[in-house]
Amino acid sequence: MHLFYQAQPVTYLTEDDSRHAIRTLRLGVGDTIAVTDGHGNRHSAVISQVDNRRCSFRIVDTQMTAPRPFSIRICVAPTKNIDRIEWFVEKAVEIGIERISFFIGQHSERRMLKLERLEKIAVAAMKQSLQSYLPQLDEIVSFSDLIKEGIDDQRFIAHLPEHGPVLNLAKGASPGGRYMVLIGPEGDFSEKEIQQANDAGFQMVTLGSNRLRTETAALTACQLLTFINT
Amino acid sequence: MHLFYQAQPVTYLTEDDSRHAIRTLRLGVGDTIAVTDGHGNRHSAVISQVDNRRCSFRIVDTQMTAPRPFSIRICVAPTKNIDRIEWFVEKAVEIGIERISFFIGQHSERRMLKLERLEKIAVAAMKQSLQSYLPQLDEIVSFSDLIKEGIDDQRFIAHLPEHGPVLNLAKGASPGGRYMVLIGPEGDFSEKEIQQANDAGFQMVTLGSNRLRTETAALTACQLLTFINT
Repeated sequence: MHLFYQAQPVTYLTEDDSRHAIRTLRLGVGDTIAVTDGHGNRHSAVISQVDNRRCSFRIVDTQMTAPRPFSIRICVAPTKNIDRIEWFVEKAVEIGIERISFFIGQHSERRMLKLERLEKIAVAAMKQSLQSYLPQLDEIVSFSDLIKEGIDDQRFIAHLPEHGPVLNLAKGASPGGRYMVLIGPEGDFSEKEIQQANDAGFQMVTLGSNRLRTETAALTACQLLTFINT
Repeated sequence: MHLFYQAQPVTYLTEDDSRHAIRTLRLGVGDTIAVTDGHGNRHSAVISQVDNRRCSFRIVDTQMTAPRPFSIRICVAPTKNIDRIEWFVEKAVEIGIERISFFIGQHSERRMLKLERLEKIAVAAMKQSLQSYLPQLDEIVSFSDLIKEGIDDQRFIAHLPEHGPVLNLAKGASPGGRYMVLIGPEGDFSEKEIQQANDAGFQMVTLGSNRLRTETAALTACQLLTFINT
């Protein structure tokens, strides 16, 4: 079963998906497909018409998938090498995430981010992993603006301090919650940012004993929060 | 503190590490470095001599890190796109793994694998994450040879069956064990392989409800087993 994405309430695939269905998958009239709107609805449909640019379908049945009983939001400072962030987005969407936010930290090497390519990667990963929800991707904001958000969430900042034990995220977070986790840039958070987050009510947590790259830490946080809800 | 890798019982860095220390990091005589042998020993050392090709050091102190009280071995069928396996090796080493094995499955698209580049990636990830153990990487073998191994381990095969509930790896594995997990190729395991693994005593487990790419499944298995030992 091939899963396609059509956010609009129309009964034809996007131009890209139409091309993929007709040219690559060689699907034709009468073939059955699945189409998700990225908001939990999955249609089982039959292809009713095809031409070079458009693949139309007739909806046979629609299943609504309930959202997960918890919600993961990872906020990460983009890496200098954008491939690492693209990789994180693909993997996080595959294993399951509700929202990905980006911020500029004091030690950030990258201060600009184009969401378009990341959104394409998120859609592809959603389809590939057969999910019906497309995670939200947010435009990059400043650290100080970001920490004003998610007041009602379980909020954490991942930081491996020089000395002194810190709670592991898996122990600090409780199941069934709305989580917001801050992951710092390659140069880590500044002491000032750690203090600001602490003052804003973010709990300092570790993701294990190893020093992790930014994108590895971001994915590990996502994995840990998924596991405590398994 | 910069961590270097020297597997040999000598008091100078490899040619690559010497160049990195002298040219890139601009370290010189009297500077302090850390050197691991990849077998748990970490030397605190002082650079005693440098020339263009060799950076020699004097060991000041040696700390032995005990191995983890559990052992993770992930056995994966290499992906068609080798980048995905290189990515898995880097990430698995960062979060912590003892052994990575490769096998050829009935549906494998890739049947050859050069370990040299993967070993370089593993060393870089070990140094980057400040660890003292270098995981073992095994040459690729056939599926039938692989399942004869690890008789004393907790052995699992990751498979998302068409229907019927299957135990999650996090529930099936018990803490403090030696684990061996099989992760199939893009085309998944064949029914015959599932049966062979079952006959050989491998327990069928899932890694969650989403369909994961080969390399994502391999890393998720590693994360799950780390998590139950946290």
